[in-house]
Amino acid sequence: MLDYYERSLILHEHLRGKIGTVGKMPIVDKDDLSLAYTPGVARPCSVIAEDKDKAWDLTLKRNTVAVVSDGSAVLGLGNIGPYASIPVMEGKALLFKDFARIDAFPVCLDTQDVEQIVNTVRIIAPVFGGINLEDISAPRCFEVERRLQDIGIPVFHDDQHGTAIVLLAALFNACDLLGKPLESLKVVINGAGAAGTAIAKILRCVGHDETVCGSVADVIMCDTKGAIHRGRSDLAGYKLEMLTYTNRDSRSGSVHEVIEGADVFVGVSKGNLLTSDDVKRMNSNCMVFAMANPQPEIEPDDARRGGAAIVGTGRSDYPNQVNNLLAFPGIFRGALDARATRITESMKIAAARALAAATSDVSVDRILPDPLDRTVAAYVAKAVAKAALDEAQMSGAH
Amino acid sequence: MLDYYERSLILHEHLRGKIGTVGKMPIVDKDDLSLAYTPGVARPCSVIAEDKDKAWDLTLKRNTVAVVSDGSAVLGLGNIGPYASIPVMEGKALLFKDFARIDAFPVCLDTQDVEQIVNTVRIIAPVFGGINLEDISAPRCFEVERRLQDIGIPVFHDDQHGTAIVLLAALFNACDLLGKPLESLKVVINGAGAAGTAIAKILRCVGHDETVCGSVADVIMCDTKGAIHRGRSDLAGYKLEMLTYTNRDSRSGSVHEVIEGADVFVGVSKGNLLTSDDVKRMNSNCMVFAMANPQPEIEPDDARRGGAAIVGTGRSDYPNQVNNLLAFPGIFRGALDARATRITESMKIAAARALAAATSDVSVDRILPDPLDRTVAAYVAKAVAKAALDEAQMSGAH
Repeated sequence: MLDYYERSLILHEHLRGKIGTVGKMPIVDKDDLSLAYTPGVARPCSVIAEDKDKAWDLTLKRNTVAVVSDGSAVLGLGNIGPYASIPVMEGKALLFKDFARIDAFPVCLDTQDVEQIVNTVRIIAPVFGGINLEDISAPRCFEVERRLQDIGIPVFHDDQHGTAIVLLAALFNACDLLGKPLESLKVVINGAGAAGTAIAKILRCVGHDETVCGSVADVIMCDTKGAIHRGRSDLAGYKLEMLTYTNRDSRSGSVHEVIEGADVFVGVSKGNLLTSDDVKRMNSNCMVFAMANPQPEIEPDDARRGGAAIVGTGRSDYPNQVNNLLAFPGIFRGALDARATRITESMKIAAARALAAATSDVSVDRILPDPLDRTVAAYVAKAVAKAALDEAQMSGAH
Repeated sequence: MLDYYERSLILHEHLRGKIGTVGKMPIVDKDDLSLAYTPGVARPCSVIAEDKDKAWDLTLKRNTVAVVSDGSAVLGLGNIGPYASIPVMEGKALLFKDFARIDAFPVCLDTQDVEQIVNTVRIIAPVFGGINLEDISAPRCFEVERRLQDIGIPVFHDDQHGTAIVLLAALFNACDLLGKPLESLKVVINGAGAAGTAIAKILRCVGHDETVCGSVADVIMCDTKGAIHRGRSDLAGYKLEMLTYTNRDSRSGSVHEVIEGADVFVGVSKGNLLTSDDVKRMNSNCMVFAMANPQPEIEPDDARRGGAAIVGTGRSDYPNQVNNLLAFPGIFRGALDARATRITESMKIAAARALAAATSDVSVDRILPDPLDRTVAAYVAKAVAKAALDEAQMSGAH
């Protein structure tokens, strides 16, 4: 029996593209041509020339998302460049279509320069209703996303926020189940990249106030050198900034040391990091989210042996898979439906709450919905669109 | 009864996009997800990381074309910008799909700076197998196209070469019919923009030698100030360059003057320019291609009254429509099939010859195939692919 990898290669050779385009009207006679193209098309063009907002009503813009990558941080493969990233971006586009009826198109950029990425996305934005940034390495991803927030359509780095939203949803249900208030949690995150940083921010209410979603008691972030704390002289940029919202008590030491007394471990790093002895030093009723792929930071059985009450991974063959697929289709569907100009913090938290609520028969082995449940994206979309419209109404901007 | 324009607007409001994306495999269970996305997709990614050429075999690249515009010269509407150009680029993408099975995607650029256009197209090139430039105004279109010839995939400005190829095909059949050798023709072109310049070049063998296709005897190019000749002091750039391949005898005067003694009039300008008296001063058995839209430079009846033996326009409701739709689907289909790295002059002339040959029952009112004939693109594609492969073989590069 061939493994996933060989079968995937054969499939890709066969399909030559997991997505294609499809015409939405037939061109049978001169009349069709005159309506879809010249001379008739001059009319919708003129209407948009008068008011470019009309592109939302008269073109593909309203339902179209760009999946943009520079190929610098692809899956576990690292910096493999734009060409090698195409199969992933195509796959993502396929999922957008399949789960949220969104017409997504892969845009793989032959540059890894922040200035050029920002410029290119701005320039190609007219036909898109949203931009999904994907597999762009930290810290460049932070600047790229930040600088694109004002382009009038949502720009959302899924590796950051998709992961953070699904993890937050998992914590909502886990806390309920274990009777631990979210506000009481001490969290250790291993991996200070895109996902880890976004998780720390959402858990510590960076970008939103605590009325939208409570802040956990503390987050300690670890990179390859251990805990990020005030005593380290090697910190700069976004890691330096982390000191303002993580590690309240300025604890130092390796992840194995600072995990002591934690309620939650979040791994977005490399496999085979922790042992059950590490988990034993965590608080009672602790939670372990070991999301490294394909090898988790700790095998679920080992985590449970160490006393973890709830264990999640990034893998589909274990319970509680933290899978971005639960978030991005519904988030973009909701944003497009509301014609949102950005994905705000309250939209993200609405998505997390909807995901938690969409989980049926919650149990320790079921704190998230099934990623293949087709109703989830619709449920999330509704919540996200509502949050967007509520905000727009409050600011009087709609 | 509503006219084309109002009906087109209603259609666009209804469709909200004339094209969309379509998944080429179902995502039903975990296995599908593991093959189309993680973890399996890592394998095709790795193969491409080793050899980026493999993107042609494993992704959508081989069948995907970008329809790129900056909205600076859209139809008869002029510089309406990228948003208002979307309906046209979508329409073009629809035709690519419908006539040549090509997955084309509209890329409407929010810049009209040559440097930025060139840069953006280079940066987004990885997922595309070809670039169709569209509705970019002269003279910027010449520089944009020239500077993109080395990016490894065909870059083809359809307003220039598509029009020139179809007109050349029409002339092949018209010359046959009238017994006039192409080499004997004196041609007057009114309109020194993208299309006019490309027509002059292909007719005067600029970019290819006369063994591929004979040069006409002379071309006189007119702009709004009349014939372009050595005595004019206002010429610069590409108009100055025209002196090297047009107006051998340096004739001056308005189009009404220099048309005297011409065998062919080509109008790519504005409607209502000529009268039948102008045509009377042309040579016997002359040909008039009045391609301005929607109002031709002269009505076909008036041209015939003036003595024109063959009359073509840009309109579908008159005989002999010079329609780019006859060329671009087959040209890109052939280029993609041959994995050509550019559209060479011999590929263009092969396309024109194929188009002429694909015309059944040639007569004065039928010197081109029906634009809606589905076999034409296939016929053109075959000829273009053969020309590409022959050239590659000759240069030993394939």
